[in-house]
Amino acid sequence: MQFHHHGYVSADPRVQPAAGVGINRPEELPAEVDVLIVGSGPAGIITAAQLAQFPGVVTRVIEQRPHRLMLGHADGIQARSVETFQAFGFAEQIIQEAYQITEMMFWKPDPQNLKNIVRAARVVDDPGGISEFPHLIVNQARVIDYFAQYAKNSPARLEVDYGYKFVDLEVTGQGEYPVTVTLEHTSGPRVGESMTVRAKYVVGANGAHSEVRHSIGGRFAGDQAYHAWGVMDVLAMTDFPDIRKKCAIQSEDGGNILHIPREGNYLFRMYVDLGEVAEDDKGRVRETSIEQIIQRANAILYPYSLDVRDVAWHSVYEVAHRLTDRFDDAHSHGGQTREPRVFLMGDACHTHSAKAGQGMNVSMQDGWNLAWKLGYVLEGRSPEALLETYSDERQVIAQNLIDFDKEWSTLMARRPEEFDSPSQLEDFYVQTAEFPAGFMTQYQPSMLTAEATHQGLATGFPLGKRFKSAQTVRVADGVPVHLGHHHRADGRYRIYAFADERGAALDRWAEWMLDSPDSPVERYTPAGTDRDHLFDVKAVYQQPHFEVDITRVSRLFLPLSGPLQLVDYEKIYAAVPEHDIFEERGISREGVVVVVRPDHYVAHVLPLTATAELAEFFEPLFLER
Amino acid sequence: MQFHHHGYVSADPRVQPAAGVGINRPEELPAEVDVLIVGSGPAGIITAAQLAQFPGVVTRVIEQRPHRLMLGHADGIQARSVETFQAFGFAEQIIQEAYQITEMMFWKPDPQNLKNIVRAARVVDDPGGISEFPHLIVNQARVIDYFAQYAKNSPARLEVDYGYKFVDLEVTGQGEYPVTVTLEHTSGPRVGESMTVRAKYVVGANGAHSEVRHSIGGRFAGDQAYHAWGVMDVLAMTDFPDIRKKCAIQSEDGGNILHIPREGNYLFRMYVDLGEVAEDDKGRVRETSIEQIIQRANAILYPYSLDVRDVAWHSVYEVAHRLTDRFDDAHSHGGQTREPRVFLMGDACHTHSAKAGQGMNVSMQDGWNLAWKLGYVLEGRSPEALLETYSDERQVIAQNLIDFDKEWSTLMARRPEEFDSPSQLEDFYVQTAEFPAGFMTQYQPSMLTAEATHQGLATGFPLGKRFKSAQTVRVADGVPVHLGHHHRADGRYRIYAFADERGAALDRWAEWMLDSPDSPVERYTPAGTDRDHLFDVKAVYQQPHFEVDITRVSRLFLPLSGPLQLVDYEKIYAAVPEHDIFEERGISREGVVVVVRPDHYVAHVLPLTATAELAEFFEPLFLER
Repeated sequence: MQFHHHGYVSADPRVQPAAGVGINRPEELPAEVDVLIVGSGPAGIITAAQLAQFPGVVTRVIEQRPHRLMLGHADGIQARSVETFQAFGFAEQIIQEAYQITEMMFWKPDPQNLKNIVRAARVVDDPGGISEFPHLIVNQARVIDYFAQYAKNSPARLEVDYGYKFVDLEVTGQGEYPVTVTLEHTSGPRVGESMTVRAKYVVGANGAHSEVRHSIGGRFAGDQAYHAWGVMDVLAMTDFPDIRKKCAIQSEDGGNILHIPREGNYLFRMYVDLGEVAEDDKGRVRETSIEQIIQRANAILYPYSLDVRDVAWHSVYEVAHRLTDRFDDAHSHGGQTREPRVFLMGDACHTHSAKAGQGMNVSMQDGWNLAWKLGYVLEGRSPEALLETYSDERQVIAQNLIDFDKEWSTLMARRPEEFDSPSQLEDFYVQTAEFPAGFMTQYQPSMLTAEATHQGLATGFPLGKRFKSAQTVRVADGVPVHLGHHHRADGRYRIYAFADERGAALDRWAEWMLDSPDSPVERYTPAGTDRDHLFDVKAVYQQPHFEVDITRVSRLFLPLSGPLQLVDYEKIYAAVPEHDIFEERGISREGVVVVVRPDHYVAHVLPLTATAELAEFFEPLFLER
Repeated sequence: MQFHHHGYVSADPRVQPAAGVGINRPEELPAEVDVLIVGSGPAGIITAAQLAQFPGVVTRVIEQRPHRLMLGHADGIQARSVETFQAFGFAEQIIQEAYQITEMMFWKPDPQNLKNIVRAARVVDDPGGISEFPHLIVNQARVIDYFAQYAKNSPARLEVDYGYKFVDLEVTGQGEYPVTVTLEHTSGPRVGESMTVRAKYVVGANGAHSEVRHSIGGRFAGDQAYHAWGVMDVLAMTDFPDIRKKCAIQSEDGGNILHIPREGNYLFRMYVDLGEVAEDDKGRVRETSIEQIIQRANAILYPYSLDVRDVAWHSVYEVAHRLTDRFDDAHSHGGQTREPRVFLMGDACHTHSAKAGQGMNVSMQDGWNLAWKLGYVLEGRSPEALLETYSDERQVIAQNLIDFDKEWSTLMARRPEEFDSPSQLEDFYVQTAEFPAGFMTQYQPSMLTAEATHQGLATGFPLGKRFKSAQTVRVADGVPVHLGHHHRADGRYRIYAFADERGAALDRWAEWMLDSPDSPVERYTPAGTDRDHLFDVKAVYQQPHFEVDITRVSRLFLPLSGPLQLVDYEKIYAAVPEHDIFEERGISREGVVVVVRPDHYVAHVLPLTATAELAEFFEPLFLER
């Protein structure tokens, strides 16, 4: 964490200096905004938190409730999300209070006595080290709290505007604020009154029933039939021995439970499968009482039992696998192609079962994907075309999510006798572990992702996948640093220059970056800003840190910044001999440049000598300064 | 972290439910208090934070300033203090924002050209793994902030009372509140007015010039001569290559600098030695200007130079090695022995150089040592005699501190030609590393620390030293847990029962703990409280966690608690095969009981069969319920 940069900071350094729109941020929702985010759930709030780092952009996020979320219904946090939290500065804090999944238990009918369930398998979570972060369970309300805190501590001082309901919008295409949005006050003295906000962009992050989706003519397609679950968050006494472990439990009569221990050591959640909902059900399934859910859970758990002492929350819900036909409004006006103005994300785009614990996670990645792009376009860094990549990138992810969840939830609902092999369920869980952990996303070549021409130079950083961090040592102070953990959610691109053995090629590359008119730093960094304003360029040396002579390192990696023009010493790294990043990530000893976009995805891998190619890559992406 | 125990908690689980005096805590300082802490520095605030966990005790802490500390002068945080922060729940947070010391550099005159300094040695910090926590630099103001937050989040909802100055006290010995304290308002509408508070106990944590010390007739003894330092916290440009590393720098002319990089990547502190202060100096040394300090620093650093761009703070200070003649007032009234009512801690007891970075650390351990004892006596758990152990334990620590600092600061001030060997300075640093890291404290046998009769059963837990944590796995959920990290600052004793190979001896011990009238749990735990209210009893098994059958573990380790009588699953642990705690801490395979006091020190080590001895140990310490 960097601070004291402009002088001594006495209080919490997480509170960044206010800038731009954060300096005198109006409390009231203004009549004109750059970005209006509808909904402060996980997708909306991460969008807001990221945009709060762009203090040139007026971002507001409205929420129908008059207050913060008290109890959310999502709780599964994949490792990719914890990486994301790290970028937003609160991974350590949320890990402290979360439940951590280290293994999953599979319970099945006892072959000796089918009436009883018995522990059939124990599967270790992430045995291969997909991420250095854990797999967590923590209530969505707390995730939102942390993002909201980050947004408030950011230069734009962004806070949620509570008590506004989205009614409708119209893309007029006219003027500077081409979207007219009608809202309604849901609390306070003006409750029931409507108001109009004009926006440059609108983000619909308001759930499965999104009126923003309706307003751009979007439709859900997918399953016709709904599946019903009884879900309960309870405090209970039990003799079931794996009550503090994640379990898939199947009983002889076809019943099944997904059991999730919750944060805090006492609470747990059970999803009790209530089956497909008959077409003529007419909502009867929703009348299932908490007593009936508990009774069903007890039947499935036999010979064990649950004595429920407190119900924190319960619900019966029906859900179908559905996907929106559009992620933005770009093509919604009579086939006439134009840049998108309205975007959908999260549950407004995709609904599915809760069985794979994916919803909140994918939604947050939707939000992060879009947010920095909006920031780039609105701050004039990038052309509007950048916004088209949101739909291109996220639609396919949503489809993959639906496909995966369908397969997993179908398997979990299968009766014991229907499996191809006795271990089919746990085998599927192990084989597909990378998907639910959040690391199967791989963006295809586009203006943001280069072709994999030079992939062989850094096999451990696959193009289009998230940059998988590794241990290094910071040269200036000898502190062990996970390289990727310096990649905070500040909206910047990272360019990692892995050195050749003697460093001569690195020096030549650095010289080009410093002096060439084609260098992206030279070409795009706005006058009057620090040299690392757009691109955080770091060097990683092959030798141990104490063999790197900092006085001989290019000044590209020792930039001066801020009003006092001080050197930033956090750009130069070295391999840790016992966990050599060059070995662990298959990095060529001749050096390589790895470009990573603001949301952590590998954008380019190329040799230190390929300067023209590097220059060319950024051309469609950035506007000349 | 445990929560949701009594039902669902929506917001930050670090905010514990208010209890006792925290439920309607008066904003105004009351006329009668149980404990009055004078001073909210590191010693005072940790005392307050710990006592805030005893909601039956009215604790108030007064501070002369009208607001929080903006800029503190201490910044060295030894690993023992980070362990302590972990117990108070904020280690992760403070590590995020701290500078981390991983190595120290020694610079000396270049033998080739004595005018120049040259890097002579690099010494790795804690190569032996004294602690799993790092060695940090972070401003005292932030340390205080975190303790203050903890105090406020604790059941007693304790907050500092700003704007009160201590004037005098009298130990009347009369009535329930035998100490009468005179205070003066230093801010607000009543500024200048005095007021009286009657207290059961007073804690003087108000610095080297402590009026509390004066009021009990305490005197400082030690060096007559003062040593002067110029110290500056600055932002600067420099070509000195180790500017982001801790350095001891000696120049040919006898000058020396202790250089400390500070948190946030830019700021650093230099202590520039200004030598012994002549008897007839009459404060002239204090007129040394910042320009002169910078000039002196530049001279010592030659051929490197400093271009100071911003001075966050600077000072010239004189300090002597001094120790108070008393840590409490027990013997201050004409030789008549009685229980202590007034205590001194921190700088009020010991002053010394800043060179070893010890002051704040030892002060915090003073405070923690006393705080839980006050809590025990005031809540009626223990006899008043417990309070005598404070002086007995801490006076010797203070003496050791002074001795160590004298040796280290003398060595650092020595001219290059005066050393016995060229590497004497760095050799001393390496050989004594455990002391400044905070782990040489070893309390002698007393009512709190047993004789080392059975030390051979757990050689890695030396009696009287702090319990050195090790990795284990929690059986119920398979989560890796550093065993000691469950030892939070909640004022409880921990009793770790390390199992014998088959667990039969452990079962017999557990049975005795559950059922015997001599069992400390039975004998001392107040009626109507949870079974683990006083003693947190944990089992550690030898086999891997998945081989421990939780259904066969004694219910001693699965206690019911709270209004809902739920099982606490966080009492049962297992060795990690690849880091076996039994191997790493020399624990007998026949099992052993290790008793650890609330401030982390090992109180007893004894066989599972020595139940009578265990009962006997607690007898003088606890009052029958």
